[in-house]
Amino acid sequence: MSKSIGLFGFGEVARGFYQALQSSQLDASIKKICIKDAAKPRDLDQSFFTSDPTVLLNDPDIDIIVELTDDTEISYEVVKQALTNGKATISANKKMIAENISEVSHWHQTYSAPFIYEASVGGSIPILQNLEQFFKQQEIHEIRAILNGSTNYILTQMQKNGLSLDEALILAQEKGFAESDPEQDISGRDALYKIIILSYHAFGETIGNLDQLRVESITNMEDHFYDLAKAQGLKIKSIATAKRKNGKLSVKVQPELISQDDELFGIEHENNAIVIDGNLSGKQVYTGKGAGSLPTGAAVLNDLSLVLSGFRYGARKSIGGLKKSA
Amino acid sequence: MSKSIGLFGFGEVARGFYQALQSSQLDASIKKICIKDAAKPRDLDQSFFTSDPTVLLNDPDIDIIVELTDDTEISYEVVKQALTNGKATISANKKMIAENISEVSHWHQTYSAPFIYEASVGGSIPILQNLEQFFKQQEIHEIRAILNGSTNYILTQMQKNGLSLDEALILAQEKGFAESDPEQDISGRDALYKIIILSYHAFGETIGNLDQLRVESITNMEDHFYDLAKAQGLKIKSIATAKRKNGKLSVKVQPELISQDDELFGIEHENNAIVIDGNLSGKQVYTGKGAGSLPTGAAVLNDLSLVLSGFRYGARKSIGGLKKSA
Repeated sequence: MSKSIGLFGFGEVARGFYQALQSSQLDASIKKICIKDAAKPRDLDQSFFTSDPTVLLNDPDIDIIVELTDDTEISYEVVKQALTNGKATISANKKMIAENISEVSHWHQTYSAPFIYEASVGGSIPILQNLEQFFKQQEIHEIRAILNGSTNYILTQMQKNGLSLDEALILAQEKGFAESDPEQDISGRDALYKIIILSYHAFGETIGNLDQLRVESITNMEDHFYDLAKAQGLKIKSIATAKRKNGKLSVKVQPELISQDDELFGIEHENNAIVIDGNLSGKQVYTGKGAGSLPTGAAVLNDLSLVLSGFRYGARKSIGGLKKSA
Repeated sequence: MSKSIGLFGFGEVARGFYQALQSSQLDASIKKICIKDAAKPRDLDQSFFTSDPTVLLNDPDIDIIVELTDDTEISYEVVKQALTNGKATISANKKMIAENISEVSHWHQTYSAPFIYEASVGGSIPILQNLEQFFKQQEIHEIRAILNGSTNYILTQMQKNGLSLDEALILAQEKGFAESDPEQDISGRDALYKIIILSYHAFGETIGNLDQLRVESITNMEDHFYDLAKAQGLKIKSIATAKRKNGKLSVKVQPELISQDDELFGIEHENNAIVIDGNLSGKQVYTGKGAGSLPTGAAVLNDLSLVLSGFRYGARKSIGGLKKSA
């Protein structure tokens, strides 16, 4: 039977998801959309919209909640209530998920309804799904990643085309790659949220206190550093890292000087890339668009298809002990 | 209940799979291994081995057949009989699968037991799984890929370290990256098998007559071409391509001159990489080790975990028509 969706938010990602859903063959359709200002004129018929969250959350005919607001508090309330009400829930709110990662871990274990959030990390790249499936049978040593499309676009403009940071930021905003608050991008905070979510799915560990983590802004680099890097054939990139060291998980985001041999050297413009070093597969790199309405909407659509197939994130157990086989 | 595996072959990939399975937490174990010479001394207890395929294929207690021989005819017979007997079947034999892709497509539709073969393409990279899941909701425009680890290793040695083709081939063989028949690698034939399998899962189309396809060997390039390419900042790579043009699927493998802007420019040594251009996500790149006992064994292990979770490859339907939603 066709599944019914309640959608929160109708910004860039939500419209990308809406468009992707239209052209897909998934047996699900949007019943109602909750937005802040229900009276604002939109492309869709007015009857789809409401400003009352309970209209969606308490509707027994709505099976799936897709939460795509950029308000952290609303996101938290909506997701928690939807799961409590037994509705499969999809979100893209990296800040909400990262800041509440311990509680999110608890949600996975206690609610019967699945909570899935591929679009919160790496834009279009199905990285959580690959961590949950392909990498589930492996011990992961380290993750290194470019996770903020806006910052990477700015750094590319500075190093390829010689723009100043301010000029490059304006261009990124014009192109629509910057978040509603560009400070989150530039400061490394946005990438930090994402690496915290990746860490949870790669290492099975949650980080309670974000303020103790090292997060360095790209504005900490003086402009002439970029010229020096270029002269030596190097690049400056904002790199998020998560790894275990002496049994302890360490997570950071900082600008780094990287050489041609680095897997992340060629990742330019608004692209994101994630390098995963697994004990069996060795290093793998996943690259794709880290921003944009349709690419991110495609990740949400994939989450919907996972929900329809009965998929849910599972707890990661430690791997490595010898098992009696053969 | 723990599942029982019958393993065919005990070469590099099979031993990698065996080792990966030992350290995994999957609820399955190897019951019997079928090899050509059962008397040959091995690390494992002699009682595991047999030379009689029917001992595995007709054992009602064996749930899953993992076929990792490098003999195309044996592979075909074993896989077909295993599926006929209702056993979930995993294979890594790209030649067998590609040469029989129309029949394989038929197997997916007629047998109740699943047939899965991630390790046949792209070594460690879970590319078929991503085509079957993430890209299932999208229309794929084109696939471009480096699919032969041995050839890529040779080209890297020639262009980075100035080796001749002959010197580089010897080095690749010493490192264990070349197939049992290096001619399959060098000629582009091995990559052709893999792009045919990718095409089926990306476009839903099978190719009956392999001999009509364009396959060019890297030996067709004269040695001084490499110096010319380097002088212009270009590289020569063996590229497999599959795309739709005027509604018709075209598939080829040939050495190409590529520039720094190309997603495949930085793919060196025995690595494989696959660029998928989807109508929603845009271009994504998946990179990982294209050869090696443990990385390829990890792909087989992933197939096993997919089988245990009830996964099977599904038919790809055309996508793109507007669907009534919202």
